Amino acid sequence: MLVHKRSKAPTSSWNRRPALLSHISCQLESFLRALTMVNETQHTCSASSSSRSDGGSSSGSESSKDNSRCSTPVLDADRHERLREKMRRRQDAGDKWFSLEFFPPRTANAAVNLISRFDRMGAGGPLFIDVTWHPAGDPGSDKETSSMIIANTAVNYCGLETILHMTCCNQTKDDITGHLQKAKRLGLKNIMALRGDPSGEEWEEEVEGFNYAVDLVKHIRNEFDDYFDICVAGYPKGHPEAESYEADLRHLKEKVFAGADFIITQLFFRPETFLKFMKDCQAIGITCPIIPGIFPIQGYHSLRQLVKLSKLEVPQEIKDVIEPIKDNDAAIRSYGVELAVSMCRELLDSGMVHGLHFYTLNREVATTEVLKRLGIWKEDPRRPLPWAVSAHPKRRVEDVRPIFWASRPKSYIYRTQEWDDFPNGRWGNSSSPAFGELKDYYLFYLKSKSPREELLKMWGEELTGEESVFEVFTCYITGEPNRNGYKVTCMPWNDDPLATETNLLKDQLEKVNRRGILTINSQPNINGKPSTDPIVGWGPSGGYVFQKAYLEFFTSSEIVTALLKVLKKYELRVNYHIVNVKGQNITNAPDLQPNAVTWGIFPGREIIQPTVVDPVSFLSWKDEAFALWIEQWAKLYEEESPSRMIIQYIHDNYYLVNLVDNDFPLENCLWQVVEDTFELLNSPTQQ
Amino acid sequence: MLVHKRSKAPTSSWNRRPALLSHISCQLESFLRALTMVNETQHTCSASSSSRSDGGSSSGSESSKDNSRCSTPVLDADRHERLREKMRRRQDAGDKWFSLEFFPPRTANAAVNLISRFDRMGAGGPLFIDVTWHPAGDPGSDKETSSMIIANTAVNYCGLETILHMTCCNQTKDDITGHLQKAKRLGLKNIMALRGDPSGEEWEEEVEGFNYAVDLVKHIRNEFDDYFDICVAGYPKGHPEAESYEADLRHLKEKVFAGADFIITQLFFRPETFLKFMKDCQAIGITCPIIPGIFPIQGYHSLRQLVKLSKLEVPQEIKDVIEPIKDNDAAIRSYGVELAVSMCRELLDSGMVHGLHFYTLNREVATTEVLKRLGIWKEDPRRPLPWAVSAHPKRRVEDVRPIFWASRPKSYIYRTQEWDDFPNGRWGNSSSPAFGELKDYYLFYLKSKSPREELLKMWGEELTGEESVFEVFTCYITGEPNRNGYKVTCMPWNDDPLATETNLLKDQLEKVNRRGILTINSQPNINGKPSTDPIVGWGPSGGYVFQKAYLEFFTSSEIVTALLKVLKKYELRVNYHIVNVKGQNITNAPDLQPNAVTWGIFPGREIIQPTVVDPVSFLSWKDEAFALWIEQWAKLYEEESPSRMIIQYIHDNYYLVNLVDNDFPLENCLWQVVEDTFELLNSPTQQ
Repeated sequence: MLVHKRSKAPTSSWNRRPALLSHISCQLESFLRALTMVNETQHTCSASSSSRSDGGSSSGSESSKDNSRCSTPVLDADRHERLREKMRRRQDAGDKWFSLEFFPPRTANAAVNLISRFDRMGAGGPLFIDVTWHPAGDPGSDKETSSMIIANTAVNYCGLETILHMTCCNQTKDDITGHLQKAKRLGLKNIMALRGDPSGEEWEEEVEGFNYAVDLVKHIRNEFDDYFDICVAGYPKGHPEAESYEADLRHLKEKVFAGADFIITQLFFRPETFLKFMKDCQAIGITCPIIPGIFPIQGYHSLRQLVKLSKLEVPQEIKDVIEPIKDNDAAIRSYGVELAVSMCRELLDSGMVHGLHFYTLNREVATTEVLKRLGIWKEDPRRPLPWAVSAHPKRRVEDVRPIFWASRPKSYIYRTQEWDDFPNGRWGNSSSPAFGELKDYYLFYLKSKSPREELLKMWGEELTGEESVFEVFTCYITGEPNRNGYKVTCMPWNDDPLATETNLLKDQLEKVNRRGILTINSQPNINGKPSTDPIVGWGPSGGYVFQKAYLEFFTSSEIVTALLKVLKKYELRVNYHIVNVKGQNITNAPDLQPNAVTWGIFPGREIIQPTVVDPVSFLSWKDEAFALWIEQWAKLYEEESPSRMIIQYIHDNYYLVNLVDNDFPLENCLWQVVEDTFELLNSPTQQ
Repeated sequence: MLVHKRSKAPTSSWNRRPALLSHISCQLESFLRALTMVNETQHTCSASSSSRSDGGSSSGSESSKDNSRCSTPVLDADRHERLREKMRRRQDAGDKWFSLEFFPPRTANAAVNLISRFDRMGAGGPLFIDVTWHPAGDPGSDKETSSMIIANTAVNYCGLETILHMTCCNQTKDDITGHLQKAKRLGLKNIMALRGDPSGEEWEEEVEGFNYAVDLVKHIRNEFDDYFDICVAGYPKGHPEAESYEADLRHLKEKVFAGADFIITQLFFRPETFLKFMKDCQAIGITCPIIPGIFPIQGYHSLRQLVKLSKLEVPQEIKDVIEPIKDNDAAIRSYGVELAVSMCRELLDSGMVHGLHFYTLNREVATTEVLKRLGIWKEDPRRPLPWAVSAHPKRRVEDVRPIFWASRPKSYIYRTQEWDDFPNGRWGNSSSPAFGELKDYYLFYLKSKSPREELLKMWGEELTGEESVFEVFTCYITGEPNRNGYKVTCMPWNDDPLATETNLLKDQLEKVNRRGILTINSQPNINGKPSTDPIVGWGPSGGYVFQKAYLEFFTSSEIVTALLKVLKKYELRVNYHIVNVKGQNITNAPDLQPNAVTWGIFPGREIIQPTVVDPVSFLSWKDEAFALWIEQWAKLYEEESPSRMIIQYIHDNYYLVNLVDNDFPLENCLWQVVEDTFELLNSPTQQ
């Protein structure tokens, strides 16, 4: 592993270097909110990392005691590289990439939406996102809306490589160190070092203080050595407050030589502006990556405000086009997209640009369109594992999880955040420490995104019995409207509509839910499909993926009694765990061992088994699954109301059941198990 | 886990209790050698351990921090149980079992034969074997023929549950403690505590010394707590030197109450002798298992000598039969087998006997026949893993090995004996420490069993070129005699004839060996055969086993050059490692990761991947594989002789190649790779 070494540049002082984006943001926070776009992504798996030198050819016949074998299967090199290495690798491979900037939301509700948007998106596969720093908004606090917490969420819960902006102007060394320590603790690995705006009109340089971004860069390197990747801002037209374009270039060089790893530029309107800037940078010895900041014009007023704040001048040819259509937002956006695409093409074609950074103005459509037209939006993202990987460095070895949280991965991440070790290779290797409690903070992130009124429409204003509950489950599965004409698009255990994979089982699921087998999780059996399969595939190409059929549901004790009789017939073939809210637990799992239900075989690697049914963690999941009946459903109704009592009854009396069909090469027998159960219940001797 | 607790019995003294077998052995070592049979076995996998209580049903909803999850897949409960637990489990399950006693050999050559016999046998599946203690033969030393080292070999190299006998008479406390410490260090877990014979005629009890077996039992419990399982000897007719049958029973009770776990009896001639003894034991409160010692009569003289030594009386009805046929060994043995079978049946039918201990007289045939006729010789042993598991307690988690030592498992065990951790679940999890050096001791155990003359006949008195070497390899594969009419039944890399599994590839192997692809290891691809498959199956039933095709061979640099060109076409599908004796290494393995080439999917468990192709350990294997050319083959010839120089040339210039076809569901492409290579070599442009 190369250690990134830097030559130390002499500490020179130079005046008036306000940092790019925070400069704007501090003056007009509300505007900047529009400057930055919420975006979502997930790790994509580049097919192979065969370019890594240590795998090539080695000589020497001794095996050494301290042989540093990578201790994980490393399905995707991405998970193990720092941002600057990813950038370098992409550049070496000739891959073009993009990144997206956004700002923290103003309300807790907006934060929930932001996070849910993170999940919906990500299909595009940005190399990273960045989160701006709002000195006015208590950016380092634990508020749900702080820059720090939003970046934390992006990294840990959404698996996004994230850069946290940080400004230093008017802050004490201790404050800054505190912020950085906290960022490190949360698993953030990248900082965009900015000056920020002086707070008064008559700003005076502080002796020994943090006056410029370069001071922050030096401070980070002094205090945290090489831990963080550092990004700094570049100004293609020179900073408006700089003495000259040349002086500004020298300031930039100083920041880079103080330890910055790459540069993101302020927006600009003509590709030649950036290309000249880049050549000028190279001419004075700046060799790190320089990423152009792209601003797709999306409206007349936002452009005018931006221009005023950034002191940039809009070229006459652009003004000529938009002035006549200034009241036609659609036309302006369409023009903006056109302009951005053409500019990006020119940049990419120059051969000097490998990545594009988008100021998305908080709007999805324009940026997505630009990226799609450029062909760098990933249409078919490859999954490195069947579940979304968290980007926390501590979790990078994690490659096994219990299946139970499949629809609630954020809850799993939250509840395992205190773990020191994550299971790697096998769940059994982890000592499986306790799962964290269900707390308010957790509930904030994981609570249903729909308001109460909407939930009542979906799940029933008034329940008349257990059958009304069966109906809700059935409507969720089928996608048909309920008796009041509303579609059930989420359930307490599933925030999102049915997964594509679950759709494979739709008909059978509908049938059993109607009869009171209230399914909350399932997967079909898969006997060696290519790892590139669009629905069930994951991992590098050239591999084969497998699954054992899985079915998890709530059901009544009457059905459980019959089910247990039926399961005797399927002993060895079907493993089961059956538990009620009190923790009474019936299982035929051998020795509390986990059962691998999803695995993959890949060229040149050990077997990856990312999903298991684990008897021990099932008891933690049970608490959560039962709690959701009350927290999310029963509490929609008045206390003592019949509807509430029905849900309470189910919570108190139903069992949570999971079934695994171990014979993955044969036809899934779990539907037959359920069929046999109902047959037994309906047989005359049983009546 | 139950802790085995004992009530302490008062220390009473009682005279003259010479221990059973060592009593005999010390007086007439040469005879006793015939009393004990060399036998071999390996762990067999009883289908499932579902009877274990902790997997049944548990309640309680908290997951606990110190949750003691078993950290291995536990394919076979056998590997994790102590002997007394295995005995108990077998008894609870109603399984009948047997065990076999043998004595250490007298010469190093006999030791090699003994060990190779260990490997050939084991199909029968004894619960344990025991090794007698020979005070006259320096039994605790490091000599290859000592009791200690033979027991060590049985446990570590042959994977046999083993009881080491130990006597205490005329030994100091320090000596005894030293022996026990050494036994523990070597991984021995079971001791048969015996008095041994006093050395002089006029033996006097030593004050504070070890006078009786009970003293040794107490000493073991005092010094080693519950570490060892302890066995003691019982005398169905009473010990010849005991005051009375009743007094002897009381002595036995004392040994048990001092901490013995079970009893093995002296031989006897009538089943009622044992059944009465057993009832008498129970009547005075002895509740531990009592295992009858069975002595199949195999010859007139051995019986007479035994009777003289043990002071047992042969019943008249037996004498009446054998006296008339005393010179007809075959007839006597036939009668002895008949008698033993009938006695064993009666014992087993009594319902009081669950296991039988055989004094095999060092002869295989009689005991095996008795066991087969009783139906307790395992005809089709199930393999817990595709390779034989070592019985050392430190290695019990081991469930992954590199494929390279597949034909030399003892070498692998020897060279990894210093490892503190064994890979469990994934090879990548082990830090893969250095492999031990190839030393003399190692060579003793692993050297070819055939004498030089025989090897020369097989491998050629005189080699005329590389082609003569190709011929030897080809004859080994085909089983056809070589040009001098001798069959090649072993090779330096393979002590045994071709494995059944390799036979599946015979035709292709023959073809490529003729052309100079000198194969030393291979396996076919398997796409989900039942784990009960007689040829490639392993692990518990109800599972599926898989393999990637593997081929390993020596070949010339010309062929390697062509092969590398051909392999470009198979990139991603075929992984390769190509190395010469100097360690020049060419591979396309990603990041030095291991490639799992054998794995199994079982009901209710995580995936087991017991065999990997590991790039790092391949370099250690390379040293061994190349060294065998010189140590075992070249050195058969005179220095400077042409034959020797041919082998030396191959050693110096050939490459060791391994190939894995990752596409296990498709037809093995490795033969096509070789075919393409020869085609390329023969193409006109190549000439």
